Amino acid sequence: MEPRSAEIICVGTELLLGDILNGNARYLAQQLASLGIAHHYQTVVGDNPLRIQRAVAIACERARLIILTGGLGPTPDDLTLATLADFFDVPLTERSEIVADLELKFAKQGRQLPESSRRQAQLPEDADVLWNAMGTAPGVIWQPRSGLTILTFPGVPREMKAMWQAVAVPYLKQSGWAAGVIHSRTLKFWGIGESTLAEKVGSLLNSENPTVAPYANEGEVKLRLSAKADSVAAADALIDPVAADIRQIAGDRYYGQDDESLAAVVGDLLLARSQTLSVAESCTGGGLGQLITATPGSSSYFWGGIISYDNRVKQSALGVSEQDLAQAGAVSSKVAIAMAEGVRRRLGTDWGLSITGVAGPGGGSAEKPVGLVYIGIASEAEARAEKFLFGEDWTRDLIRERSALSALNLIRLALMSV
Amino acid sequence: MEPRSAEIICVGTELLLGDILNGNARYLAQQLASLGIAHHYQTVVGDNPLRIQRAVAIACERARLIILTGGLGPTPDDLTLATLADFFDVPLTERSEIVADLELKFAKQGRQLPESSRRQAQLPEDADVLWNAMGTAPGVIWQPRSGLTILTFPGVPREMKAMWQAVAVPYLKQSGWAAGVIHSRTLKFWGIGESTLAEKVGSLLNSENPTVAPYANEGEVKLRLSAKADSVAAADALIDPVAADIRQIAGDRYYGQDDESLAAVVGDLLLARSQTLSVAESCTGGGLGQLITATPGSSSYFWGGIISYDNRVKQSALGVSEQDLAQAGAVSSKVAIAMAEGVRRRLGTDWGLSITGVAGPGGGSAEKPVGLVYIGIASEAEARAEKFLFGEDWTRDLIRERSALSALNLIRLALMSV
Repeated sequence: MEPRSAEIICVGTELLLGDILNGNARYLAQQLASLGIAHHYQTVVGDNPLRIQRAVAIACERARLIILTGGLGPTPDDLTLATLADFFDVPLTERSEIVADLELKFAKQGRQLPESSRRQAQLPEDADVLWNAMGTAPGVIWQPRSGLTILTFPGVPREMKAMWQAVAVPYLKQSGWAAGVIHSRTLKFWGIGESTLAEKVGSLLNSENPTVAPYANEGEVKLRLSAKADSVAAADALIDPVAADIRQIAGDRYYGQDDESLAAVVGDLLLARSQTLSVAESCTGGGLGQLITATPGSSSYFWGGIISYDNRVKQSALGVSEQDLAQAGAVSSKVAIAMAEGVRRRLGTDWGLSITGVAGPGGGSAEKPVGLVYIGIASEAEARAEKFLFGEDWTRDLIRERSALSALNLIRLALMSV
Repeated sequence: MEPRSAEIICVGTELLLGDILNGNARYLAQQLASLGIAHHYQTVVGDNPLRIQRAVAIACERARLIILTGGLGPTPDDLTLATLADFFDVPLTERSEIVADLELKFAKQGRQLPESSRRQAQLPEDADVLWNAMGTAPGVIWQPRSGLTILTFPGVPREMKAMWQAVAVPYLKQSGWAAGVIHSRTLKFWGIGESTLAEKVGSLLNSENPTVAPYANEGEVKLRLSAKADSVAAADALIDPVAADIRQIAGDRYYGQDDESLAAVVGDLLLARSQTLSVAESCTGGGLGQLITATPGSSSYFWGGIISYDNRVKQSALGVSEQDLAQAGAVSSKVAIAMAEGVRRRLGTDWGLSITGVAGPGGGSAEKPVGLVYIGIASEAEARAEKFLFGEDWTRDLIRERSALSALNLIRLALMSV
């Protein structure tokens, strides 16, 4: 056993079939890290009592805090609590306070409590209720054996997260689980490959506290700096000098850290200059605007945009000339510039940013293959476009996403040099 | 041991820290299901040799095909192959054909092969190379023991997927792993809760082949029908009658199956009627347009839109009156209708669809709280708006996503009744 470590077990055949992404495991992993609770394994298992029991048996050998998600709902394949009770040889008992809570929740919708949902009131005899404010299925906080704590959550992410924050975090702090922290900072880069960055950063990768680990994910390269310390502040003090060295080495390829998105960084640069932005999008269809407006408060610098998916809209709403569309084509440097200038002028902003490209899978030609994208940028001082050639084997989603992010990086660099 | 089943082991401390979603596990799970290869467990473990070995030891007990992702890169924390070689007590040897391949790939970028990347040419002595056409790190196809097959892939999703398709799938078919299929169909619903649907469907949930399992994920409710058979066609024949029963029960709450998104279903309805659509977005900032254009070929019915994030753009580009904005406010039924009518008229499409709301976290008031969203729809025949009140505790992302999907559902129902 590794003392004082946690294991996450996600129960759900939909995970084994690949129907959904395991966002719950990610969320819980982040939360455990921020609480300084070591966590070395995650297991996914289907809605199968025997295999759930085997996974729990293994987890009992290597962790003292087991967090289960999934299998608490009202349907027959929701088996987590019955299976745990069986494994630890404890009877299930119906809790009258849960029945009352369920009846109240159904009454609010003008409904009687169905028998299938009433089953959710049955918990292992000596377990405490982990109340679910956002949904019907409660979980448990349970010590089935000395030195072993089990927390269970429903699989619905919104309910699980609310229960985690409202009940589990205070419990883990009070019970001494959350002592010290493992605090991470992720430095984010654009326009440099993982191996090139790793070479530039060199011996810093062997640092021990903080550790420095590179990873790449679809165009974005990151370095994760993780420090163990008594407090977040102490961990930050260990991370600061190493992060400063790395930023020095990376120059303007470094764009932000942790939750700072390219869009948020662009927003900060615009705010600092009291400038405004609008967008004109073709192949991304609104994705660039969506990225920009994902940042709360973006209305201070983002006024809006034109989704000119059809050439008629490029002409009528952006003023792109019929001649440019006919001669250079919709996917061209000329049209990208005209789109950026057009949206800047029509919406009256300081900057205009445009995207036009072939996102595929159809619509490519020898001259203009799938993956060819022009990004235009216009300000009072200049109007220009950059050409990008993404892989022809890339998916439509990936080409669209990378196009929007590349546009943000283009204006980021332009704003930094203003 | 469960004979002939597979286990997925994802290696990467970034997964344990929650830095990334485990998209690789989902992809491999889908692929295994479609090949009819049973798969009962997934394990996530960090970049730690001892724990990787423990996870492999457990997997050897319960699976005969172990698929590992991650830890094949050029950096010092990429330890998967060295750890496997150590566990099975086989030496690593440098493969000259991999060195040659790496040198060629770096030469194409005008670079020499760095020593750190050369380490990727070292494989366990008796393993076959699983070539990586999209990146530098190769994997292995390896029988370290009789009756045990190991496949390794890099963690970068694009490389992993390409290697899976090009090499692993043919290998699994040739070696007899992929015999028979477990084929699933997912029926998707909008506007009905999981427990209500489960009750309506009733005894069908006890069906054995296909099995019928409900699950819910952020507003969308799904039923997964999974059948075991010799072929996809035979599995479909088992699924068809059960699916037909369920669709009958659900009525227009059923909107599509499998990869059919609400956006694609709306696209099909528009295409069938030779009609066109444009959008006017405020709080979603382009997200509705992005959803619509995620469908290839959407240019046949989607002309574009106006992102009117700022009220000036609502007036200048959509013709919303200053009076309506001042009296009813930007988040109102009146403005939603004016936006839908405005974009329909200005872009010249058959339908106009609009969204205006308070996505939060700021900007809410007692009268217009966070989560209040109006969706407008306009056609030649009518113009109206519907009010939605999403939870005040919902995240900005969730409110924006649900708003866009609700808009699609609104036009879906409108198109179905035309």
